[in-house]
Amino acid sequence: MTFRHRHLLGIEPLHPLEITELLDRADHYATLNREGRAPRDVLAGLTQINMFFENSTRTQASFELAGKRLGADVMNMAMQASSLKKGETLIDTALTLNAMRPDLLVVRHPNSGAVDLLAQKVNCAVLNAGDGRHEHPTQALLDALTIRRAKGRLHRLSIAICGDIAHSRVARSNIMLLGKMENRLRLIAPPTLMPSGVAEFGVEVFDDMEEGLKDVDVVMMLRLQKERMDGGFIPSEREYFHRYGLDAAKLAHAKDDAIVMHPGPMNRGVEIDGTIADDINRSVIQEQVEMGVAVRMAAMELLARNLRAERTGTEATA
Amino acid sequence: MTFRHRHLLGIEPLHPLEITELLDRADHYATLNREGRAPRDVLAGLTQINMFFENSTRTQASFELAGKRLGADVMNMAMQASSLKKGETLIDTALTLNAMRPDLLVVRHPNSGAVDLLAQKVNCAVLNAGDGRHEHPTQALLDALTIRRAKGRLHRLSIAICGDIAHSRVARSNIMLLGKMENRLRLIAPPTLMPSGVAEFGVEVFDDMEEGLKDVDVVMMLRLQKERMDGGFIPSEREYFHRYGLDAAKLAHAKDDAIVMHPGPMNRGVEIDGTIADDINRSVIQEQVEMGVAVRMAAMELLARNLRAERTGTEATA
Amino acid sequence: MTFRHRHLLGIEPLHPLEITELLDRADHYATLNREGRAPRDVLAGLTQINMFFENSTRTQASFELAGKRLGADVMNMAMQASSLKKGETLIDTALTLNAMRPDLLVVRHPNSGAVDLLAQKVNCAVLNAGDGRHEHPTQALLDALTIRRAKGRLHRLSIAICGDIAHSRVARSNIMLLGKMENRLRLIAPPTLMPSGVAEFGVEVFDDMEEGLKDVDVVMMLRLQKERMDGGFIPSEREYFHRYGLDAAKLAHAKDDAIVMHPGPMNRGVEIDGTIADDINRSVIQEQVEMGVAVRMAAMELLARNLRAERTGTEATA
Repeated sequence: MTFRHRHLLGIEPLHPLEITELLDRADHYATLNREGRAPRDVLAGLTQINMFFENSTRTQASFELAGKRLGADVMNMAMQASSLKKGETLIDTALTLNAMRPDLLVVRHPNSGAVDLLAQKVNCAVLNAGDGRHEHPTQALLDALTIRRAKGRLHRLSIAICGDIAHSRVARSNIMLLGKMENRLRLIAPPTLMPSGVAEFGVEVFDDMEEGLKDVDVVMMLRLQKERMDGGFIPSEREYFHRYGLDAAKLAHAKDDAIVMHPGPMNRGVEIDGTIADDINRSVIQEQVEMGVAVRMAAMELLARNLRAERTGTEATA
Repeated sequence: MTFRHRHLLGIEPLHPLEITELLDRADHYATLNREGRAPRDVLAGLTQINMFFENSTRTQASFELAGKRLGADVMNMAMQASSLKKGETLIDTALTLNAMRPDLLVVRHPNSGAVDLLAQKVNCAVLNAGDGRHEHPTQALLDALTIRRAKGRLHRLSIAICGDIAHSRVARSNIMLLGKMENRLRLIAPPTLMPSGVAEFGVEVFDDMEEGLKDVDVVMMLRLQKERMDGGFIPSEREYFHRYGLDAAKLAHAKDDAIVMHPGPMNRGVEIDGTIADDINRSVIQEQVEMGVAVRMAAMELLARNLRAERTGTEATA
Repeated sequence: MTFRHRHLLGIEPLHPLEITELLDRADHYATLNREGRAPRDVLAGLTQINMFFENSTRTQASFELAGKRLGADVMNMAMQASSLKKGETLIDTALTLNAMRPDLLVVRHPNSGAVDLLAQKVNCAVLNAGDGRHEHPTQALLDALTIRRAKGRLHRLSIAICGDIAHSRVARSNIMLLGKMENRLRLIAPPTLMPSGVAEFGVEVFDDMEEGLKDVDVVMMLRLQKERMDGGFIPSEREYFHRYGLDAAKLAHAKDDAIVMHPGPMNRGVEIDGTIADDINRSVIQEQVEMGVAVRMAAMELLARNLRAERTGTEATA
């Protein structure tokens, strides 16, 4: 038993050994899922509530399937962020849910930090399913598992993260995770979409795709987050694709066996050429989705284990 | 076996002994819920349909969790009241659902009496989750259980119900339940929000909070139902809070150990001061939510028991 | 084991013996449903995803109940067709879902052929819950089962299908199924709502209800599909009812024991007189809904059986 947290709020507080325990467990579930043999008793008797203040059909579905595959009672609550005007009311919502005694609470919220705030008010385990520009830990974990399965390791790889880094919680969580595991990170973005202060994470910064992709093992594309670009620079899609979209010519600068990733949903012809997205020799995009379910199963299992240990006042053993 | 009804449409038809049986059972489930030991076989094999013609994230979630905790197959149907122009069509919807052979049908509807009408057309057990200004029986039952646990009894208490009584089915169901159990009821509201004819229920009527709260054991605040105020008096929130919002000064007139209740969701600073809502020595607002799940588990169990007895043509035994 | 398909995309590819196997199995489930004894282990461990690109509360509920009654883990995904601009993106959605490894995928889509396209991209079994004007196979199967139970047979009956045939996938699937089973079909519609080329199906065509209904065993009314009438003829409701709505006078031309059907939801006073819809001696409309759940249970069971056989590489035995 290595993973000792009460919540999964971000990658930042995780130790590399905790990440490894979680990925090992997820790998095991990926195998069971392929064989249709996921054990229905792991979360039996537990209540999982998915509370999405921002729509995300894919991520919510992934968490829902993960919980059901392990036997949890899963309830979805569609929350309207617009009806929540004050932080106070978010807390009332949290306290109300908490009083219904859930065990696992999966939360997505448009505001950075909202999930951490909520976690302080409840007795159950909270999983961050994305909060503003802050963190999206299960996405980084599923990306890590996908890389580890494709490359056989998760360290000393050269990995490029490309696109709208400034607005991306996916990038932020990935930079932290891949950094902790001692990889060489290259960030590629137009200057307007590159956050300031990234140098402190020990990454290399590029604004040219061909330079940035040179000899990398992994090409991780990001989604253009137009909905989070408030008033600032919005590139034309054609111009963006020309300079920063992944096509065969740009990909040729990466290693011959480099893999291509995208967190989805893709804007084909904007961030990535459709042919490359569909190339089963390069693209691991479908594998990412598959690993998403497995990673969420593992995360909920480890949190439920720790919660049970806390409730019985004993030390859990793995 | 005391509770003998086919449906739970309101508090009005219930005998005090039926209310007591239901609360005793709910109390039992409240304990099991805290220990994570709710029995999954009580409603196993039964189908529960939640049919909400009015949005209510909280109440629907409470019924959904209650059903799942006891092993029912739960299905939510979001109905759009706007698409139902005629009573005829409500009945068609009911007949359609009925033909799918559910066992428990939980219904919320904006029109008073709509749930009773629907119950006449179906073969399953119907639970009223709130109909217009008519009744909201599970809310009154959860309030009763909360009071009984806090005060050790549910009779001969002095209880004030405060606020928008005219538009409140919560108030209406509570007045009936608390009256049946022989409590002293005091209704406090501005004249425009006090229904006519309440004197026949044997209650005292006040339009001043300080007078009305004098020496009460329980202060039950109501939500301002602006959506049900059609064209009439709508008070300004500031003025309303000044005269009818619960704050420390007004609460000082109640007994020292008086408890504070609110059915939620709260408008902080309108009906109630946030500090009082959060005061764990006075406020039982979170406990109300918790008891809500337990009361709904008990109600569905008793109705399912009666339904099974009816179907097998035998007399059920508790 | 007769039914050998991987998907249920339409009636067209089905052999009469396959239809019979499916209806026999559904009949069995109809009995179990009435007794509350549906076996929860048939689809246990399997994941069913309902993916509705077009709203349909009734059909989605029917599939959801069918899956839950047989023990499947059921997940609903509300898809917005408007956000899917390109066929490409429908396929991305399909590939994403496929990567989550569902076993049964129930799809409704406004475009004819979309469900077939999707089925080519996934590893699971796909059930068509209605695609454009193309097919709605489970509706035709539930109609067939209802007829067979009412009439004791499903061949050599005289059956009239009446109303908006041009825009109806229900009519299209029914014409194929009832034709395969060797019934005499009569189509009755105003010329503007009668598709061209129906004669090739070996049906008789009428534009007068009294003539068309003469001596039929079954009167199958259709819903006016105003949402699919793009710019063309839209009849006034009053005029339509006068000429093509089913009332007692028109029904008198059918056989004395003719049954009346409607796929729902009904427009009372437009396609059908309310009194006839509610006449339990003639109308089997509620029975259709009940058979809908049973037919969907049977279809998912047979597809799951074939899927398991395919996955284990063996020949399944019934």
